[in-house]
Amino acid sequence: MNVLIVYAHPEEKSFNAAMKNIAQKVLESQGHQVQISDLYKMNFKAVADRSDFLGVLDSDFFNYIKEQFHASKTQTFAKDIEDEQNKIRWADFILFQFPLWWTDAPAILKGWFDRVFAYKFAYGPGRYEEGLLKGKKAMLSITTGGGPEEYGEDARKGPIMERLFSIHHEKLFYCGMDVLTPFVAWGPQGKTPEERERLLCDYAKRMEELESIPLLRLSLVSKK
Amino acid sequence: MNVLIVYAHPEEKSFNAAMKNIAQKVLESQGHQVQISDLYKMNFKAVADRSDFLGVLDSDFFNYIKEQFHASKTQTFAKDIEDEQNKIRWADFILFQFPLWWTDAPAILKGWFDRVFAYKFAYGPGRYEEGLLKGKKAMLSITTGGGPEEYGEDARKGPIMERLFSIHHEKLFYCGMDVLTPFVAWGPQGKTPEERERLLCDYAKRMEELESIPLLRLSLVSKK
Repeated sequence: MNVLIVYAHPEEKSFNAAMKNIAQKVLESQGHQVQISDLYKMNFKAVADRSDFLGVLDSDFFNYIKEQFHASKTQTFAKDIEDEQNKIRWADFILFQFPLWWTDAPAILKGWFDRVFAYKFAYGPGRYEEGLLKGKKAMLSITTGGGPEEYGEDARKGPIMERLFSIHHEKLFYCGMDVLTPFVAWGPQGKTPEERERLLCDYAKRMEELESIPLLRLSLVSKK
Repeated sequence: MNVLIVYAHPEEKSFNAAMKNIAQKVLESQGHQVQISDLYKMNFKAVADRSDFLGVLDSDFFNYIKEQFHASKTQTFAKDIEDEQNKIRWADFILFQFPLWWTDAPAILKGWFDRVFAYKFAYGPGRYEEGLLKGKKAMLSITTGGGPEEYGEDARKGPIMERLFSIHHEKLFYCGMDVLTPFVAWGPQGKTPEERERLLCDYAKRMEELESIPLLRLSLVSKK
């Protein structure tokens, strides 16, 4: 299987980096091919703007989606976008590794979706079951600041799955991907070195059993 | 009242720009002071990294929140962050104008939160009712691609208020702000010029009646 790991953390000694490294190690030891988009190391451009296109459809009025449509037809995406799209074309499985900042992806990863998941490349006109990345799988692997007690029906932040809906349902499934149950590393910063080690072992085990991770049921509406 | 408009759209002839302009016009005509952070025009840096700090607490291990804490104590934030924080200190009311991209803020605005809403500036240790921006008001003014039929209990994207929870509850209210009912301009791109004009009039009226816009009830958990 071809695996793309999209990784968004600025510190290479971080727990997120350790998770990225262990996933790569386990997956390669199982014979999978792994590529990594290390967004911070690549100095990935987060902001969607005119320079994302080599050609221009309408120089008088900049409409990002219309320019994406044009670039898809004429193959005139900026090189960094095209490179990411080629990795996605190659990948059977995309694994996202990032810390939850403000209950959401860091801006560098949000920008990756804004720029790379382009109209007529990732979706359009087909969406959801007919999204253009149909047949590919995706999974989130995240770290949180707080513990699970902060997330839940009666907790202030609400259930973690609701916080991840915008990525699971409205980005990955929107483009037709099958989404696996996420791996959530709760508050690694507040743990002891032994606890962190155990968490990494749990994650390695999850990666070893990748084929048996259940898919999320994202077929209908937000509540399903 | 001092009003900061944080505006995130790359096209100055866009509907978002028109909304930003009309809000400024109405608010100034009522005697309010208005400042605008036009994130695209400012070429605002979206990605949180080491260069956000003039000093450094730990050069061996980069922990963004710990560096924010240090920068708050020593006043060593990068100038663009300090400038935004000063605008927030000055403001009684912050109005956010942006298009919903992937049911979320564009990366340039997500990065504004990542970088500007720093630990010990916007929150910490107090959060929610005790957040450090307590006493200030905030409101989202957004445009969508689709219509309201795409958002709702039985619609695929789920209720719009759930999609906005991550900003309303987990960024604005998290930092202690009172959050006003948002203004949602549904799918302006699919509308006729007359309909768009009417939508702008509705928005102008909303701005005229700012004092009477109800606050969201964000006091407890995600469902409230």
